[in-house]
Amino acid sequence: MRKVRMGMVGGGEGSFIGGVHRMAATLDGEIELVCAALSSDPARAQRSAKALHLAPERCYDDYRHMMAREQALPLSQRMEFVAIVTPNHLHFPVAIAAIEHGFHVLSDKPATLSLEEAHQLRTVLHNHCDVLYGLTQTYTGYPMVREARARVAAGEIGAVRKIIVDYSQGWLSSNVEAEDNKQAQWRLDPQRSGASACMSDIGVHAANLAEYVSGLAITEVCAELTTFVPQRLLDDDGSVLLRFSNGTRGLLHASQICCGEENNLSLRIYGEKGGLSWSQEEPNSLWLLRADQPKQLLRTASSQLSPHAAASARLLAGHPEGYIEAFANIYREFARAIRLFTNGTPAAKVMQLLPDIQTGVRGMAFIEAVVASSKSQKWLAVPQ
Amino acid sequence: MRKVRMGMVGGGEGSFIGGVHRMAATLDGEIELVCAALSSDPARAQRSAKALHLAPERCYDDYRHMMAREQALPLSQRMEFVAIVTPNHLHFPVAIAAIEHGFHVLSDKPATLSLEEAHQLRTVLHNHCDVLYGLTQTYTGYPMVREARARVAAGEIGAVRKIIVDYSQGWLSSNVEAEDNKQAQWRLDPQRSGASACMSDIGVHAANLAEYVSGLAITEVCAELTTFVPQRLLDDDGSVLLRFSNGTRGLLHASQICCGEENNLSLRIYGEKGGLSWSQEEPNSLWLLRADQPKQLLRTASSQLSPHAAASARLLAGHPEGYIEAFANIYREFARAIRLFTNGTPAAKVMQLLPDIQTGVRGMAFIEAVVASSKSQKWLAVPQ
Amino acid sequence: MRKVRMGMVGGGEGSFIGGVHRMAATLDGEIELVCAALSSDPARAQRSAKALHLAPERCYDDYRHMMAREQALPLSQRMEFVAIVTPNHLHFPVAIAAIEHGFHVLSDKPATLSLEEAHQLRTVLHNHCDVLYGLTQTYTGYPMVREARARVAAGEIGAVRKIIVDYSQGWLSSNVEAEDNKQAQWRLDPQRSGASACMSDIGVHAANLAEYVSGLAITEVCAELTTFVPQRLLDDDGSVLLRFSNGTRGLLHASQICCGEENNLSLRIYGEKGGLSWSQEEPNSLWLLRADQPKQLLRTASSQLSPHAAASARLLAGHPEGYIEAFANIYREFARAIRLFTNGTPAAKVMQLLPDIQTGVRGMAFIEAVVASSKSQKWLAVPQ
Amino acid sequence: MRKVRMGMVGGGEGSFIGGVHRMAATLDGEIELVCAALSSDPARAQRSAKALHLAPERCYDDYRHMMAREQALPLSQRMEFVAIVTPNHLHFPVAIAAIEHGFHVLSDKPATLSLEEAHQLRTVLHNHCDVLYGLTQTYTGYPMVREARARVAAGEIGAVRKIIVDYSQGWLSSNVEAEDNKQAQWRLDPQRSGASACMSDIGVHAANLAEYVSGLAITEVCAELTTFVPQRLLDDDGSVLLRFSNGTRGLLHASQICCGEENNLSLRIYGEKGGLSWSQEEPNSLWLLRADQPKQLLRTASSQLSPHAAASARLLAGHPEGYIEAFANIYREFARAIRLFTNGTPAAKVMQLLPDIQTGVRGMAFIEAVVASSKSQKWLAVPQ
Repeated sequence: MRKVRMGMVGGGEGSFIGGVHRMAATLDGEIELVCAALSSDPARAQRSAKALHLAPERCYDDYRHMMAREQALPLSQRMEFVAIVTPNHLHFPVAIAAIEHGFHVLSDKPATLSLEEAHQLRTVLHNHCDVLYGLTQTYTGYPMVREARARVAAGEIGAVRKIIVDYSQGWLSSNVEAEDNKQAQWRLDPQRSGASACMSDIGVHAANLAEYVSGLAITEVCAELTTFVPQRLLDDDGSVLLRFSNGTRGLLHASQICCGEENNLSLRIYGEKGGLSWSQEEPNSLWLLRADQPKQLLRTASSQLSPHAAASARLLAGHPEGYIEAFANIYREFARAIRLFTNGTPAAKVMQLLPDIQTGVRGMAFIEAVVASSKSQKWLAVPQ
Repeated sequence: MRKVRMGMVGGGEGSFIGGVHRMAATLDGEIELVCAALSSDPARAQRSAKALHLAPERCYDDYRHMMAREQALPLSQRMEFVAIVTPNHLHFPVAIAAIEHGFHVLSDKPATLSLEEAHQLRTVLHNHCDVLYGLTQTYTGYPMVREARARVAAGEIGAVRKIIVDYSQGWLSSNVEAEDNKQAQWRLDPQRSGASACMSDIGVHAANLAEYVSGLAITEVCAELTTFVPQRLLDDDGSVLLRFSNGTRGLLHASQICCGEENNLSLRIYGEKGGLSWSQEEPNSLWLLRADQPKQLLRTASSQLSPHAAASARLLAGHPEGYIEAFANIYREFARAIRLFTNGTPAAKVMQLLPDIQTGVRGMAFIEAVVASSKSQKWLAVPQ
Repeated sequence: MRKVRMGMVGGGEGSFIGGVHRMAATLDGEIELVCAALSSDPARAQRSAKALHLAPERCYDDYRHMMAREQALPLSQRMEFVAIVTPNHLHFPVAIAAIEHGFHVLSDKPATLSLEEAHQLRTVLHNHCDVLYGLTQTYTGYPMVREARARVAAGEIGAVRKIIVDYSQGWLSSNVEAEDNKQAQWRLDPQRSGASACMSDIGVHAANLAEYVSGLAITEVCAELTTFVPQRLLDDDGSVLLRFSNGTRGLLHASQICCGEENNLSLRIYGEKGGLSWSQEEPNSLWLLRADQPKQLLRTASSQLSPHAAASARLLAGHPEGYIEAFANIYREFARAIRLFTNGTPAAKVMQLLPDIQTGVRGMAFIEAVVASSKSQKWLAVPQ
Repeated sequence: MRKVRMGMVGGGEGSFIGGVHRMAATLDGEIELVCAALSSDPARAQRSAKALHLAPERCYDDYRHMMAREQALPLSQRMEFVAIVTPNHLHFPVAIAAIEHGFHVLSDKPATLSLEEAHQLRTVLHNHCDVLYGLTQTYTGYPMVREARARVAAGEIGAVRKIIVDYSQGWLSSNVEAEDNKQAQWRLDPQRSGASACMSDIGVHAANLAEYVSGLAITEVCAELTTFVPQRLLDDDGSVLLRFSNGTRGLLHASQICCGEENNLSLRIYGEKGGLSWSQEEPNSLWLLRADQPKQLLRTASSQLSPHAAASARLLAGHPEGYIEAFANIYREFARAIRLFTNGTPAAKVMQLLPDIQTGVRGMAFIEAVVASSKSQKWLAVPQ
């Protein structure tokens, strides 16, 4: 088994998520970072690449150069896929460039800046059947999220009735964007973040988690987006009533002004026979509730898990795995998908467990429906 | 200090809440149960009264008889207040009868079956200035709920922005009303429960908790009520977007089909500077969150509490107090209010910490606004 | 069913535990307090009795007077049992006086000041077969402690191997006895507390909990008692290795200098097939562990409990019960034992679920063995 | 900054800890695995090396060959340090061979099979001043363990009085060594594990944690080792009373028969002014207790941490880090120590935050004292 060769766009000095992507990519020894366009600022790109022990000739100062130059390398050397870890507005053009040069793409979420772009991207992918596209909906990489999905699919909680997803952060409680916090600045800038800040940044994770675990689609939303901190152009908080495909009802809360919260994403899902509850800040535990029985605490790497969840853990039970490991599961599976695809397995098969462009389109549709519902103060359908 | 004399309407054999009211009333040795109309079924009323060591001559089989006969007793013997622990539809007529006979009233919630009745009751009370009226919004009796209110009032979390209240139960997940579960039967019967089952039973507690702790009023709601179990005439689940008086936003979830949940009521409230989080199933703990500081765990009976919370605990720290004790706080305060009022202190003063008819009217207004919003699928104002 | 008549010795103004005993005794409406010798200081005794609505003629300033005068009352009026809630050194003489006057005794722990006294008390009880003697080992009153015992007895965790009991408090971390803290003063006074402070006060609860849940006897101890705060005459901390009757091993930690702890008593017990874990500060939860299965969370008043635990809860699941309710279970059972015993049921039968003089003797034997082991730095047998 | 070159001895197919060491070593991109002797079985060594993408010529079937052949390579290519991840009995000979060939050593714990070997190893290291020696006491790599140490050192809890460490596992509750569980087999074999199984495997971690956080030395022990599962030659359980250098008292529990437990290592430490509590299964939280103040919950990557703890986190607060990351902290620091040492910084300085041979000697002294104390049933001094 050889290592899959990765290039990266974005993620230079000052980026949080760039380093996470790199640790996640290399954790399992199945991927190597061979080239990068880490920053649009050439000096910063150079410094960043050096810190990463990248070969100087494969450190690029523009993602378009990277695509062209890598394409010119022999097949056995050139990068195989590009990881996109830029602010939102670049996800689309970088993905398009990569696809057109024949590189697979693993993009951070949201897939694009708008639903329209997402549709375009989907069309382009339709026309490039040689390219795989994946999306790092990180939280679906946690073993216990996968276990939750497996339990729902196996009917352990019966037909699903209610889903509550909550993503509460506090880091935007005050005007940090005025204090040179680059992470805050681009997220609150409509040009770089899109139609919503809070929903693009974290709401889309919560919505994806609800759909991933339940196997259901959000069909209608009734939303209230709020901007609490003065002078912001975009929302920093949102609450959404949800309707799902089979009559299931739900609630989604995503807020970045919940002062004192860290990264408090949680899911609760209830069916006719039981329920499941999971919280990202204690990710190795999953509560299983059932009528008239004691709650059960399912745990990462314990002996009672379904195959996908079991395969998603690296350690023995009681040895905590965290965010990097969850992220690494997405990377490892994408690398394996590339290997299988290169060897002839159909794309549909190799991608079946991974978030793909369809997930990306759904995310953008959700964001735009929420924004429109909040403006109109009405229930609105999410385009399917 | 003498004991205050209580009568009770409802709460005979088979009632859950009747026994709780009695334990709460007598826990602190400041109240004695002197008479009761425990059931409209005379045999059941007799058996119930005997089990309670009630004097046979003060065991009544009709609340109207009780009012008349007690009024005829000497002042030093007759009951001073009546506790109403019947299904909802009797709250109003029993309260009216008690008031008209000059007895103070401590009623279970909701105050009445409809907003219109609540308005009438308020009017009757206006005309009977000699009578005190209290409402057992039990959860406001917990020391740490009171501490939360005190911390918000003291500005510790800054101006409030977001409130999330969640009341999840699972006991109505299946059709238990078909199995001779009387608790379920009356709650799901529009004649006895009112316009909503879930909101009248538990939603009104969640709404009250949000208002009590924040000191804010819910002004608008956008609701979705659902009936998941077939053949029910009333909702068993609801989700509500909230707007509060000062621009605060909120979410209220109340559901009785969250299979596997017991009595999971929780509150989270976030302000500009911090937040508070409380959960009824671990009621002796209150989390205080603040920007860039460690979370603090405030505890019942610890040395850092505000006066009202401190006075609401009976034990030393680390000796858990529970639901009965919270309930007993409401009773003890109502008994003290009666004593002070009898001695000439104005009603407004003795009732200032207690839920009263105004709380009752707000509760009914909330329920009816939620029902109307769910029907119209629109944001609606809650009459103030 | 009539109420059982209780007298009380000790528990006047300034006592913590006196009020707890009274709330516990009266919570269920099966016991009434009819007389008391609340303090050896007559003025304090008077004030205390008045606050409790006691008839003045049955408020005594000496427990010996109480015994004599109550004995002279008609059978239908006189107290039936005496609750002893004094400092330790009075437990023995008050119990002896009560027994000799024909009153049943419910004593706070430890039973006596020394093992020798405990043996004497046992002998006296042997000679007074008309008298019942109970001991308020409060923590055995919690429903989930009883459930733990039932699960062990039913073989759910297999043969027991290891027991860890830990009772950590922090209130004696500094020299509070110098600051007029009466609770601290008598507990640290050898004349009133006995050979050990920490073991007599809380260690004996931990040891009892281990034996109660396991059904095993502690047979040998190897202990280290420490006095951390200068000038104390007795220990404020202790650690003990335990051996039990069937080869089970254990650890007991009891300390009052664990700064910041409240009343943190916990039990863990492991057998060949599983384990159980319980913590007093969240008393409504009991963890059940089993090999290769998810942990289960058993809860007070849920539908899966054994008869004794189920009967020990007053509320529905999710409505927390606490320390007073646990205490009240001991009282209610003792009152019922008195009623049955008075009606002719044998003592052995009515007392079978209650801690009795044998428990008291075991407690004193444990305390003295720990003190001796700590002095000799050796393993020592606990007299059986 | 270049990557440091690592070789590995042990850790081939079927090893748990080998993979953990490799993930930890490479997580931060500062170390590369260049050669290995993964198994003494040549075929297994080959298969294992291939799976790791190791160059075939640097895959050795004997650690002695590896030392000799690597030494013969140019300085710029040869491995710089060797990670020893074999069963215990090989730690010593492999370390000696590495040192004598001039390679730095990072060894899994315990350092050796006996205290005598540890003394020899220390002597050899004294004579090879060009070689660094580190020990993977993994749990000291957790950010919140480091924060605990910093808080104690800063005097936040005052002079330490009591330390309780507990390491409870359940995986050896039954006779798994009879079922081809290699992990169990070697750990329970005196030839490969040493004088104690449970203490060598996990007790030594607990003892190290107590000393690391407190900055104190264990000076005396009184121990009880037990073998619960029949036919085992070594202990599977142990309880130890501890005395520390400054009068501090402690308790250590290490057991592998706590049926249902995963990897439940916890620490509680109490001083004159406060306490700290940490649990490995929720490693990102650290409780800070102080007299008469609310408990505080310190969290990985939050803004209130000391420099060493802050530098030990890779992510933002609320993004859980786990066991691999803790392990990686030890590796990253050892790699940095090598770089600095190679550039001339003194060994004492580069190793000051890392567990070294002195830690290794202390661990072996602890194990042997515990074994001897258990045999003699007496308090024994731990050689310092």
